[in-house]
Amino acid sequence: MCWANRHGRIHILDPVLRTQLTVIPCDSFFSRCQGVMEGLLTRCRTLSALAACSLRHSSYLIHKCYHRAPGRGQRLVLSRMFQPQNLREDQVLSLEGRASDLTCKSQRLMLQVGLILPASPGCYHLMPYTVRALEKLVRVIDQEMQAIGGQKINMPSLSPAELWRATSRWDLMGRELLRLRDRHGKEYCLGPTHEEAVTALVASQKKLSYKQLPLLLYQVTRKYRDEPRPRFGLLRGREFYMKDMYTFDSSSEAAQETYGLVCDAYCRLFDRLGLRWMKARADVGSIGGMMSHEFQLPVDIGEDRLVVCPSCHFSANTEILDLSQKICPDCQGPLTETKGIEVGHTFYLGTKYSSIFNALFTNAHGESLLAEMGCYGLGVTRILAAAIEVLSMEDCIRWPRLLAPYQVCVIPPKKGSKETAATELVEQLYDDVMEAVPQLQGEVLLDDRTHLTIGNRLKDANKLGYPFVIIAGKRALEDPAHFEVWSQNTGEVVFLTKEGVMELLTGVHVV
Amino acid sequence: MCWANRHGRIHILDPVLRTQLTVIPCDSFFSRCQGVMEGLLTRCRTLSALAACSLRHSSYLIHKCYHRAPGRGQRLVLSRMFQPQNLREDQVLSLEGRASDLTCKSQRLMLQVGLILPASPGCYHLMPYTVRALEKLVRVIDQEMQAIGGQKINMPSLSPAELWRATSRWDLMGRELLRLRDRHGKEYCLGPTHEEAVTALVASQKKLSYKQLPLLLYQVTRKYRDEPRPRFGLLRGREFYMKDMYTFDSSSEAAQETYGLVCDAYCRLFDRLGLRWMKARADVGSIGGMMSHEFQLPVDIGEDRLVVCPSCHFSANTEILDLSQKICPDCQGPLTETKGIEVGHTFYLGTKYSSIFNALFTNAHGESLLAEMGCYGLGVTRILAAAIEVLSMEDCIRWPRLLAPYQVCVIPPKKGSKETAATELVEQLYDDVMEAVPQLQGEVLLDDRTHLTIGNRLKDANKLGYPFVIIAGKRALEDPAHFEVWSQNTGEVVFLTKEGVMELLTGVHVV
Repeated sequence: MCWANRHGRIHILDPVLRTQLTVIPCDSFFSRCQGVMEGLLTRCRTLSALAACSLRHSSYLIHKCYHRAPGRGQRLVLSRMFQPQNLREDQVLSLEGRASDLTCKSQRLMLQVGLILPASPGCYHLMPYTVRALEKLVRVIDQEMQAIGGQKINMPSLSPAELWRATSRWDLMGRELLRLRDRHGKEYCLGPTHEEAVTALVASQKKLSYKQLPLLLYQVTRKYRDEPRPRFGLLRGREFYMKDMYTFDSSSEAAQETYGLVCDAYCRLFDRLGLRWMKARADVGSIGGMMSHEFQLPVDIGEDRLVVCPSCHFSANTEILDLSQKICPDCQGPLTETKGIEVGHTFYLGTKYSSIFNALFTNAHGESLLAEMGCYGLGVTRILAAAIEVLSMEDCIRWPRLLAPYQVCVIPPKKGSKETAATELVEQLYDDVMEAVPQLQGEVLLDDRTHLTIGNRLKDANKLGYPFVIIAGKRALEDPAHFEVWSQNTGEVVFLTKEGVMELLTGVHVV
Repeated sequence: MCWANRHGRIHILDPVLRTQLTVIPCDSFFSRCQGVMEGLLTRCRTLSALAACSLRHSSYLIHKCYHRAPGRGQRLVLSRMFQPQNLREDQVLSLEGRASDLTCKSQRLMLQVGLILPASPGCYHLMPYTVRALEKLVRVIDQEMQAIGGQKINMPSLSPAELWRATSRWDLMGRELLRLRDRHGKEYCLGPTHEEAVTALVASQKKLSYKQLPLLLYQVTRKYRDEPRPRFGLLRGREFYMKDMYTFDSSSEAAQETYGLVCDAYCRLFDRLGLRWMKARADVGSIGGMMSHEFQLPVDIGEDRLVVCPSCHFSANTEILDLSQKICPDCQGPLTETKGIEVGHTFYLGTKYSSIFNALFTNAHGESLLAEMGCYGLGVTRILAAAIEVLSMEDCIRWPRLLAPYQVCVIPPKKGSKETAATELVEQLYDDVMEAVPQLQGEVLLDDRTHLTIGNRLKDANKLGYPFVIIAGKRALEDPAHFEVWSQNTGEVVFLTKEGVMELLTGVHVV
């Protein structure tokens, strides 16, 4: 992707990661390009102010303008967002019923700014900002899973009892399984995980060849678990989104290579989100198998107790260790203890499931052999909440930059204040950013609640954690105008001219 | 978005719709741009052949090459796809158990080429091609819903019984509701629709102002219905994806304006998919309300009987008419009858739900009034299957062009044939398309099963319905080489040079 800026330079971007690769001066190109963009914008300005109606919709949405505020053009305005704020402590409490239900920072903050609303114990409505963040997270996950050859499928949540009886998990899973019967009396559970379903699916493919292996199948779907005590908001719910991948290999060695491949993809994912993570040896639990690791975000409220060896990087969940063990099994150094939130879990399963469902492949000699399996989970909604938990301050949400629902919030002056004269300047800035920074289409909010002071709106923006807040304050009246720019993830505040703002925002990655 | 082609011209694209806006000759720009792209490609070629590892992953996936076929670079190869084909009639039958369960063309075709696999009655696994098509459809729906101001939310499927008791639908919905109890005995259903949940959610917002109206909330989630007799594959399942939108307005007039707005968005959606549709007056059924329309795709296997007036465009579901009525109520002309598949349904609800849950807003005078509601469904998985039903031939799938899982299938010569010499040419063509047509990243498959004849692979491609199939046959040995290009949606076959192929593919829109 490339575009021209106002200085007649052509920027070239990596098309999805949006990293800037180079900048080329090219005057003759600039004027033509500018004309095209302005043409697009003119078309766009006839459209609804309600919508995130960016360039992307320009060519077909010509039918109707609806409830359009005059002069707002295609700007995305905060006053129209369904984003309730429950600013008083008692409002937050009344949402969850009891103070004891408000058990951690991310839950409190997400309720407070209206990112989630309780629907029933352990079940939440995800509000528009959260859905945007969730969809971004799913895009990052898709990129990482597909980069290692993952193929995305989609399996039903209604999971027939006979599959679970075949592996004895119908009984073993006990009350964690939500169970139901259909009108014919047939029994189902709501899938908390899909080893049975995917193995039966692969087993139904009679012609699977070793040439197709490793086969990496994954899905991002809702999962269900009847938690005895749902808590921590999205961290431990009864209905949640999970990415579950299942791999099929031709040998134990190949399966362990695939295991490493998926673990590496998990590491890259958490690195890209800017989260500090640990990979700890873990118990195989009810999933079973021969090897297992948990990906943990170290944090005090974490429900998992971990031990770490500072000298050899050994780390493990204490559940697999003798609790009195204070010595690292690898290097005999002393172990230190920490707590973590589990955000990913990997299992090398061997043939535990393939042998039950007879999931076979044909090897180079035409022989049928059992596939060697692995399974790999990521708690999608949990990663969102855990990231907020570890990155946020006591009263203000911070997002992994890549996942922030909107990248920029622009705050024009208060109506009637002496800075009012700068209103047009900041609106022009908004439009210019839309024009010159294509990756920010749909990512920049204008806080049009100009009956409020800049200070009050900045407070809200700080609470919601937009990575960048741009304010037209006193210095917007200078010549040239200077805008106050808060980089909320780093805490930096700088004053920049319009050109400076454009340059800063040009570097913003959007997934 | 813009890019340079090999002829030193710069193409400028609408960033999402990918329509070409203009082409600018610019030699000095070209050479620089080319260099950048080649740099990117070089990085890319080190990556896994397994993955749809396009430019989008280039900057961070440097860690590992896995199971990489030598020389394939970043090409997407068909032999690695998990896309089983059940070519014999008995294989298809054995999937669904009984011949009587195979009730329509789309179901038979989707089972045959492995787009879906039965999981339990009325529940299907969606395989990778289908997930790609589904995600494209969701993107088109998102664009249309957000263009009219829709805000995307996400409500749980577990829906507490007390909500449904409040509207009496706990009893009214009868056996269509899938019901369950949690470990504490609390009753839930799996939501088939969400009027109760969303109205309770909006009612919980005590400060909703008329300035925020109309409020258009929607989600795309799985829905559940315990169909007495699930059939027609994805057309009438028990677990399916639906887009449901709920609107809140300040007056009956405003609500009816919103109703028209959403209906118009539905029309645009079906137009963009290239589907012939009808909007018919319909019964309000168990949803209730004062006005309702169905969006129907006219087709013989449709379960709905519709009447149409050829002179005044009146159309209605026969369920709302006196069955003996043969006269159009609007113009008294004769009515003709047809059948249709319902793919969308809209309801103007008035205050039916807002009065029960007390969903209020504050008007300009500070008074609290009940919100006027509408609700609007689109059967997402059903649209996929219905589109295949109406567009496909007896033995070959055809997709709405915008939704095709992959836009292009490239077929190199059979190994050992006299056209083998053209193998490199067609692989070069593949790489050049990837380089020069950015919107086709991840959209072009190489059918590397070169042990099969071109004819056999073309037969498969025809069955799967890729919009474009490019073959290196005899004329690929001419100078210049000519490739055989099948436009499967129009049935055209042409022979084009590489430049001709590039020009053709440059015009392909990808959502």
